[in-house]
Amino acid sequence: MTELELIRWIESQAQQRPDGMRLSIGDDCAVFDSGGQSIAATVDVLVENVHFRRSWISPQWLGRKSLVVNLSDLAAVGARPYACLLGLMVPPGLAGSYVECFMEGFLDASRHWECPLIGGDLSNSESLQISVTALGRLPSGTEISRSSAKAGDEILVAGHLGLARMGLNLLERETPPGIEMVIEADELRNCALSPFDVTCVKAHLLPEPLVEVGVWLREHGLVNGMIDVSDGLATDLERIAKASQLQGIINKQVLETYQKDLGGKVALEEILNGGEDYALLFTASAAQVEELKQRYPDHFPPWRLVGTLEEGRPGLFFEYEGMREAYRARGFIHFT
Amino acid sequence: MTELELIRWIESQAQQRPDGMRLSIGDDCAVFDSGGQSIAATVDVLVENVHFRRSWISPQWLGRKSLVVNLSDLAAVGARPYACLLGLMVPPGLAGSYVECFMEGFLDASRHWECPLIGGDLSNSESLQISVTALGRLPSGTEISRSSAKAGDEILVAGHLGLARMGLNLLERETPPGIEMVIEADELRNCALSPFDVTCVKAHLLPEPLVEVGVWLREHGLVNGMIDVSDGLATDLERIAKASQLQGIINKQVLETYQKDLGGKVALEEILNGGEDYALLFTASAAQVEELKQRYPDHFPPWRLVGTLEEGRPGLFFEYEGMREAYRARGFIHFT
Repeated sequence: MTELELIRWIESQAQQRPDGMRLSIGDDCAVFDSGGQSIAATVDVLVENVHFRRSWISPQWLGRKSLVVNLSDLAAVGARPYACLLGLMVPPGLAGSYVECFMEGFLDASRHWECPLIGGDLSNSESLQISVTALGRLPSGTEISRSSAKAGDEILVAGHLGLARMGLNLLERETPPGIEMVIEADELRNCALSPFDVTCVKAHLLPEPLVEVGVWLREHGLVNGMIDVSDGLATDLERIAKASQLQGIINKQVLETYQKDLGGKVALEEILNGGEDYALLFTASAAQVEELKQRYPDHFPPWRLVGTLEEGRPGLFFEYEGMREAYRARGFIHFT
Repeated sequence: MTELELIRWIESQAQQRPDGMRLSIGDDCAVFDSGGQSIAATVDVLVENVHFRRSWISPQWLGRKSLVVNLSDLAAVGARPYACLLGLMVPPGLAGSYVECFMEGFLDASRHWECPLIGGDLSNSESLQISVTALGRLPSGTEISRSSAKAGDEILVAGHLGLARMGLNLLERETPPGIEMVIEADELRNCALSPFDVTCVKAHLLPEPLVEVGVWLREHGLVNGMIDVSDGLATDLERIAKASQLQGIINKQVLETYQKDLGGKVALEEILNGGEDYALLFTASAAQVEELKQRYPDHFPPWRLVGTLEEGRPGLFFEYEGMREAYRARGFIHFT
C-alpha cells in the first residue's frame, strides 16, 4: 500500500470531524481552531537507510533537518512555528554522544526558528528513527491550503528546485570523505567537493525551511493555494491542481531559463521530479503577482513563475512553444 | 543515555519557553494556552521487539494500543482527547492487509475515544515502528500535573496494578497459540489460557485508558496531583513525589489487601514495579477523599488508597507496621 492509497483508504473510513477542524488529512498540516486562533499540526518521520544514512550526515545536521522538514510543512499553510515534540528511536549500540550531538542540532534549530521542544519519547530501536511533530499558530480562518488555488492563478516557486536531488545523487554515488563530521557549511569545502557540489550537498543536508516566506505571503494576502515542494515540483503541483480541481500547466521555457541560471548543470528531470527541495509552490492571481513584484522582500529567496492554473479536468500538463501535453509526475521515492 | 538523563540534559539547555506554555517536558503532556482554553500534547512511540512482538498481538490490537497509551497521558493531565497524528514506519515485506488491520484497530479506538486522526506520515522501515501524537483540550488553567500534589495528600490509584506485567511475563515465557489473530477479548479463551491468564494478557494487550476518570477528577476539583502509571507504581509515585518536592509513603498493608483481592496470584514486585498498567495515580486531600467517597461514579474503575504524601526530603518510602524505610523503585524497562 502506498502512502496515497493509505490516505485514500483512511479518508474512506467514517471518521467524525472534530469541532473547529479546518484542514485535515491530505494537506501539509492539520489546522484547527482554538479560541480565536488556529493551531497547525504536522508529523514527519525520518528513517535510517530510507531518508538518510548515518555515513552521510552529522548527527547535528540530522537533528536540524528532522525539525526543518516539519517547519516547511508549517510554512506551507502560513503558520508560525510554536513548539515541537520529538519521538526518538535509537539503536542500543549508538553512543550517548551521538544522541547528544543530534539533540544539539535539533535544539539549535528549534531556537533559531523559535519552535521549542515541549515533549517527547525516547526508545530503543534496531535502527535510528526520528518522528517530529511540529505545532504552529495563525489567526483563525487565514490558513492557506492545497485546495484554495483559483482558476487563472499563476504558479510561483520560491526557493530552489533540483539541487537537493543532485546532492542526494552525489552522496549515493560516493560518500565524500569526512562528510559525516561536518557541522558547519563552510567545512563542506574540505570534503573534496567542487563549489557546485557543495551547493547541492548543502541543499540536501542543510535545507532552509521558508517559514518567513510562508507567513509573509499569508499575512499579506498575496497567495491563494500553497504546498511545500518535498516530493518534486511535478508531484506537488499535481497535488495542488487536483485538490483545487484545476489543471496545472508547467511552462517548460521557464524551467529551461532556470536551468541556465543554475549553470546548465541540473537536468530537467531533477527540477521536475527532484524531491526534498523544501521550496514553496504557491499560486496567486495576476493582481497579486503585480503586488508581489512591488512588495516581496529582497532578503527572501526569489520567486519565479513556473506556470498557470486553468479550469478543466484536474491534472498536470506541460507547455512548450504553444504545444500542450499531459505530464505524468514520477515523484520522489526514498531509497529501499 | 537513559530517557531521564536525556530529559535532564535537554532541560539544562537554554530553551525559550513559548508564550502561554503551562506544562512542558517532564510531565505526562505538554499543555499550552490557545485562546481561552488549553491544548495538551503528548507523543509516544511503540517499537517492534522493544514494546511489542508481532507474534503476540494482532495488528488491530496493536493499532488500538498505540493510541491508548497516548490517551492515558492525556487522562493524566485531565484533558479530553481532541485529535491525533500518526507516524507509521513499516517494513517493506509487511503485507498491505497488515497495515489495513492496524489502521482498523487504530481508527476504531479513535472513534471510541473521540480522538480522530487528522494527520500522519508513512514510511518504509526495517522494523515496525509507531509514533502517535495525541492532542487534548481542557479549560485554561485547570490542568493537573505531577508537581501539584500537596503535603498531607492521600495517594490513590484507579485501575489495576501488576496484571499487565503478569500478562507480559506470560507472553515472554510462551506465546499462546493463535494469540496474534485475536481481535475480540472473548477469543482469548481459545488460546489455551486460564481465566486469570486471560485477565492478565488482556490487561497487557488491551489496556483501557482512564480518559473519563481523568476528566471527571479534574472537572470536579477532586485531585491535586496526577500521573498515569506506565512504568510501575513505585517509579511513577517517585516522579510525582519528586516533582512536588514531597515524600511519598507507600502503605504495604494496603498492597497486601490488594494482592488478596486479586486472588494472591500477583507478587508485590509486579504491583510495585509492573509497568504498562495505565492506571491513574492521583493525590487528594482528606476532604477531597471524603467527597470522592460520595460522588465517584460507580461505573468507573474503583480507586484505592495506597499511601500518603508528606513534607520532607523528596523520595519514596515503604511503611509497614509503623516502620518506614526508603524504597528504591526498579521501574519498568522494556526488553532489549
